[in-house]
Amino acid sequence: MPNYKLTLEYDATGLLGWQKQPDGASVQSCLEEALFRMCGERVTAYCSGRTDQGVHALGQVASVMLPKAFVPYTLMQGMNYHLLQTTPEPAAISVLAVEEVPDDFHARFSAKRRYYRYRIINRRGALAIDRRYAWHVGVPLDHEAMQEATQYFIGHHDFTSFRASECQSKSPLKTLDALEVKREGELITIETNALSFLHHQVRNMVGTLKLIGAGKLPPESVKAMLAAKDRSAAGPTAPAEGLFFVRVEY
Amino acid sequence: MPNYKLTLEYDATGLLGWQKQPDGASVQSCLEEALFRMCGERVTAYCSGRTDQGVHALGQVASVMLPKAFVPYTLMQGMNYHLLQTTPEPAAISVLAVEEVPDDFHARFSAKRRYYRYRIINRRGALAIDRRYAWHVGVPLDHEAMQEATQYFIGHHDFTSFRASECQSKSPLKTLDALEVKREGELITIETNALSFLHHQVRNMVGTLKLIGAGKLPPESVKAMLAAKDRSAAGPTAPAEGLFFVRVEY
Repeated sequence: MPNYKLTLEYDATGLLGWQKQPDGASVQSCLEEALFRMCGERVTAYCSGRTDQGVHALGQVASVMLPKAFVPYTLMQGMNYHLLQTTPEPAAISVLAVEEVPDDFHARFSAKRRYYRYRIINRRGALAIDRRYAWHVGVPLDHEAMQEATQYFIGHHDFTSFRASECQSKSPLKTLDALEVKREGELITIETNALSFLHHQVRNMVGTLKLIGAGKLPPESVKAMLAAKDRSAAGPTAPAEGLFFVRVEY
Repeated sequence: MPNYKLTLEYDATGLLGWQKQPDGASVQSCLEEALFRMCGERVTAYCSGRTDQGVHALGQVASVMLPKAFVPYTLMQGMNYHLLQTTPEPAAISVLAVEEVPDDFHARFSAKRRYYRYRIINRRGALAIDRRYAWHVGVPLDHEAMQEATQYFIGHHDFTSFRASECQSKSPLKTLDALEVKREGELITIETNALSFLHHQVRNMVGTLKLIGAGKLPPESVKAMLAAKDRSAAGPTAPAEGLFFVRVEY
């Protein structure tokens, strides 16, 4: 069975996240239904990193073994055609690229590095244009204090304090390779990458950085949070709609 | 009657443009309904430049004379509250700022300069995230050729070739002060400003720049288009969803 690597962009607003759910459309269910319409057989799509409800993707990668061979470009065009029907909001999922890959390629297990971006719009006025694609923070944030705090997150740590209770990872030990805060006008962008992340880790780090930016906590408080190994020691979970899965390296 | 200047952001996707229509919600009708709920009287909101169906705004300005006085911040908060009910897609219109202004201030007639931005995403793959906020152009565009063409638009010209047939302006003579094309990866941004524009002028200029970027016409072809004073001599009208009314100077 030929194996394909799919690069995907999606707007998660009307979807239940990546994973198939009994009660509604997910990215996986929309993709698998589109593939069923092309192949006549049910197949399973695996992704590099499952995104939660509301989390968008600019370059998610999925892999799928199909019962028949396709010219990659034909598979891409066909999937985009069928996705218009299988996705609740038309065009909310787009297949950007398709590549045939060796049998041993697996979107999740072959991934070497995942990149995420979080967008905060920091202004008083409510969001109209970006209301589905950013976290609106009305209190002024000091992005330099947020950037100062990033140094404490980078490196190999026990991230228990930044891990969702439902996280399925065997170990809370992770190595964070990069975390950077930038401001351009009212937009604050937080970029991060690592081999892998715990469930909610990015959103929990961002929720903490926001408290630091708002002056509620000093940048160095991150050290004590990590040491506490207790979710309640860290900041709240930032909303899903500001988070983008940017790309994967293999 | 106190006079207020309102600064507005809106996502035009679910609206019929600025102007009130008999058959659906427009920015004006949603604002006026919100104001009615606050004042108990019907008032008319005037804007600095009417936007067509699908055209977004980051900093539209409206002026409105109200039958009673409000603290500006209270008016802003109250309008944003009522707009959640009067707008078909909640939060698609946001009042960013409110200021009390002298009686002779009029959003349209007092305006000295209008700024527009047009966004093109230039890549093969269909848009998911930006499908409501950009023009998707799949053929490669040469942004340097587009930028070269801008010099022929700038200045005082008869813009008949770039004017919609339903344009109500008395004269087709306009002075274009700036037009600039920039690329950042797959995003091409076209920024322009002038005292005022003809109906569809920005979208018609962008439709022509796109043909030049695609190599269908040389940059200097703009000269002959302007000289022709004939709408059919210029390129097609670019789609509304890529256009943003950015701000106004008074």
